[in-house]
Amino acid sequence: MALGKDYEGQDCALARALELVGERWTLLVIRDAFYGVTRYSDLVAHLDIPRAVLSDRLQTLTAAGVLERRRYQDSPPRDEYVLTEMGRELWPAVYALSRWGGRHLSPDGPSRAYTHAECGTRLDPAGGCPRCGNGLVPPEDVAFRPMRPTREDRSDQVSRALSGPRRLLRPLAEVD
Amino acid sequence: MALGKDYEGQDCALARALELVGERWTLLVIRDAFYGVTRYSDLVAHLDIPRAVLSDRLQTLTAAGVLERRRYQDSPPRDEYVLTEMGRELWPAVYALSRWGGRHLSPDGPSRAYTHAECGTRLDPAGGCPRCGNGLVPPEDVAFRPMRPTREDRSDQVSRALSGPRRLLRPLAEVD
Repeated sequence: MALGKDYEGQDCALARALELVGERWTLLVIRDAFYGVTRYSDLVAHLDIPRAVLSDRLQTLTAAGVLERRRYQDSPPRDEYVLTEMGRELWPAVYALSRWGGRHLSPDGPSRAYTHAECGTRLDPAGGCPRCGNGLVPPEDVAFRPMRPTREDRSDQVSRALSGPRRLLRPLAEVD
Repeated sequence: MALGKDYEGQDCALARALELVGERWTLLVIRDAFYGVTRYSDLVAHLDIPRAVLSDRLQTLTAAGVLERRRYQDSPPRDEYVLTEMGRELWPAVYALSRWGGRHLSPDGPSRAYTHAECGTRLDPAGGCPRCGNGLVPPEDVAFRPMRPTREDRSDQVSRALSGPRRLLRPLAEVD
């Protein structure tokens, strides 16, 4: 991968992670996968991402083992992209960066709240449940909901589906 | 900032975080600040980063309030760049991405171990201490050490200083 070259003097796990997920849009694609947005057309609608870029990112992430491509319809053929176990382990990083952006860079504060689904307690800075303890709450046990109304210019069906409370990793398609 | 434009339809804290810290090299500069590498010349030596890129990143991060520029020598004038409180709050993200890269993308495993300095216990996936509890261990209480010898081609003085156990956020310059 071309991007790797510049970092190659860095014997550092962070540099290796950034070679893969540090490209523009990549972490947003992964975030959407946590939200349950797994179908190509839904990703296009929700991210406003150029199709060529999305295709490239999906291919890279699939080849690296972060996403797994699954056929959900045969005619016409349609695929979805779901997080592997390796991909799911990116949750603490996605959560930490989102939380930081919400605290420091969002004039209206965080756009979404993340809670431990079992008890409804907001996650702490490390993604743990301050009430139940036990370290990181696994993403499948995390609920999320918007903290304010969806922006009026976001009228795509994915934004509408994400306008209420949901559970991470539950495919949009299965419940809507 | 030019990068922001493409993400502007995304009302998302993660997108905002990536606009600032998602540029190439930026998180490696921040990681080095956690390691105590705060001087321009040390960053150049340790990161093999083009000077123009480093200057740009330092200026962006200072303007955004992630780093604070401090004069440590008057003649000739020399500055160092230290993490602000806002910058220190990036620790969970830096840790989570590093850990993930070490687990999944490093053939020899993680390059560094992070422990709770007080009790010596390795941090859990969320950056907490499994022995002491209490959620995230603040970065000033985290010790780190290399898991294997420094690569032979890394002979700069910063790599040598980082070849033993250290505490995060303790400036290299003060102890060497």
